[in-house]
Amino acid sequence: MNMFEERLRKLQALMEVSGVDLTVVGPGADMLYLTGFSDEARERPLLLMIPVEGAPRFLVPELYAHQVEEVAAFPPTHVWSDSQGPEAALREAVRGLEAERVAVDDDLAARAVLLLQDALPRASFSLASPLLKELRMRKSPGELELMERAAAIVDRSFLRVLENVTFFGRTEREVARDLEGIVLEEGAAGMAFETLVASGPNSALPHHRAGERRIEFGDVVILDFGCRVGGYCSDITRTVVCGEPTPRMREVHRVILEAQEEGVRTARPGIPAQEVDRAVRGVISRAGFGEWFVHRTGHGIGLEVHEEPYIVEGNPLSLEEGMTFSVEPGIYLPGAFGIRVEDIVVVESGGARRLNRCPRELVAVAR
Amino acid sequence: MNMFEERLRKLQALMEVSGVDLTVVGPGADMLYLTGFSDEARERPLLLMIPVEGAPRFLVPELYAHQVEEVAAFPPTHVWSDSQGPEAALREAVRGLEAERVAVDDDLAARAVLLLQDALPRASFSLASPLLKELRMRKSPGELELMERAAAIVDRSFLRVLENVTFFGRTEREVARDLEGIVLEEGAAGMAFETLVASGPNSALPHHRAGERRIEFGDVVILDFGCRVGGYCSDITRTVVCGEPTPRMREVHRVILEAQEEGVRTARPGIPAQEVDRAVRGVISRAGFGEWFVHRTGHGIGLEVHEEPYIVEGNPLSLEEGMTFSVEPGIYLPGAFGIRVEDIVVVESGGARRLNRCPRELVAVAR
Repeated sequence: MNMFEERLRKLQALMEVSGVDLTVVGPGADMLYLTGFSDEARERPLLLMIPVEGAPRFLVPELYAHQVEEVAAFPPTHVWSDSQGPEAALREAVRGLEAERVAVDDDLAARAVLLLQDALPRASFSLASPLLKELRMRKSPGELELMERAAAIVDRSFLRVLENVTFFGRTEREVARDLEGIVLEEGAAGMAFETLVASGPNSALPHHRAGERRIEFGDVVILDFGCRVGGYCSDITRTVVCGEPTPRMREVHRVILEAQEEGVRTARPGIPAQEVDRAVRGVISRAGFGEWFVHRTGHGIGLEVHEEPYIVEGNPLSLEEGMTFSVEPGIYLPGAFGIRVEDIVVVESGGARRLNRCPRELVAVAR
Repeated sequence: MNMFEERLRKLQALMEVSGVDLTVVGPGADMLYLTGFSDEARERPLLLMIPVEGAPRFLVPELYAHQVEEVAAFPPTHVWSDSQGPEAALREAVRGLEAERVAVDDDLAARAVLLLQDALPRASFSLASPLLKELRMRKSPGELELMERAAAIVDRSFLRVLENVTFFGRTEREVARDLEGIVLEEGAAGMAFETLVASGPNSALPHHRAGERRIEFGDVVILDFGCRVGGYCSDITRTVVCGEPTPRMREVHRVILEAQEEGVRTARPGIPAQEVDRAVRGVISRAGFGEWFVHRTGHGIGLEVHEEPYIVEGNPLSLEEGMTFSVEPGIYLPGAFGIRVEDIVVVESGGARRLNRCPRELVAVAR
């Protein structure tokens, strides 16, 4: 039995237990995981439909039929053309399934969700992530190897950025472009997401992208980037200072490092995900910065940059061996600066192990 | 009244006419169009909710609250944190709306669609594109100016690619990277989509990405790329040959040029979108290649690379001044080669005008 057939059987077994009759997945990480194929196909419904028993049904726009046939583990069973539209082919594809409970891929676009609800008017719909996360969140040795390679690339790249990239006087976007060039040179198949370079007051905006602001002496600069190897992602954040850090910057950075360390120390098999968040948040709150840590502690990572398990208050999920996620506390002082440090860890029998190994200190870059 | 208030009023007027009580838009082009803000916020619901009357309600994850406040035309009204989750804030946000008919953004993720269906269990759901396309598909002079700039950048870039990029012996991905470097140097804010470089037999796969195949002498190479300026996209396809084109390649290319010309000639105010597709398809079919033209003739373009109006059989929409779309016939001979040529046009009172002006001939590149 090949890898994809094994994943299919596991999914069908989970569906059986959960009382789900049909799982529907659109282009994206779930499809990649289940078939080896993915693509964007945004406005044309391309749906892998997995009944609780039997072979998948695969609704494919004509434009993609050849590629699906070549690449995917399962053949297209219902092909539709632009001039026909997908409705009739979809009705044909679900014929005879008697699906009462349908689970859909969390990212499936509304255009496909409403189309499915039309084709299966008596079915009740829920999200497929509870099923798929069960499969995807525990990484196999083969998956981990790709993630280690992706992590090693961003580690090496960060060191080269410190050595070779000029910060002072350049825009965030220019720094991001240099950094991405280095990551690609180091052997990445591509970036995992748009690189964040947040300088000066922008560093206090947790999701600021790289923009046109020019970096000045004295600026904090947050670098948050990741790459892909064989479909699997890395993700790292380091904070540097262009020039000399102030005592306040050093203080906040020390709290972040301690919080991050505490998070990594807390994570091990059997610990609920939210306990890791609490441990990290505890350090930051005791230091008096609790109200400025405005996001969760971390997110799972694998074929997607953000996936299960989320390391957040309210998530009682017990951590298990093979789970991979970020530990990334941040403190954001509006109008002043922000600091964040992020590593990816994998849970092993003895505790969490960092996949990222490059230095976490607050580095002062002199140019 | 500012531009965003004007767009809001127009949308509410359309909702009134269509009997829609509530329009819900997630991060993406529609949100950018309506508020000036967009972001990815993938797994955290971030929803602009527009009732048929009154001010928008804006459900925003805490992490994005500051950015929405700074950038968006409308303030966040319901902020939720990772530890609370979005459910309660969403129920609060829709309280008192009595929404029976809800239109959702076509790209809205299933996780948000099902959340809304839970919060509004008696409402019926439809797609918002019929409303939003009415607003977005006729471009204002300001929008057209940005699209002309984006088109001029890819035109200049193509000429520089012909002059400076080596094809022979290099991988599709390497050529794509060179091309993207040129486009960014020419002043683009970013690429509009992942550049396609399809060489040799790969050129017969309409949606092949740039891969690891090395380009050989005699290969057809399709280049399909676009960039963004001020949020607005360009998109162009040219086909070149590395070495000398065969008579068969010349023949197919001649048919494509004629079909493309016929499409541009056909498009003008009052003509149904599908007539443009028929005109293009007619030329290709009469030349005997009908079965190898496996996709629609074109797609609208603006804040998204693919948007309304789609130039496809079955779309009776009357073209109007200000509409912008691609005319991109392709012929794909499996296992052999494919040829596609694409320009963006804008419909004006006298007919369609090409925004792309660089040569469309089959160029033989000698390296």
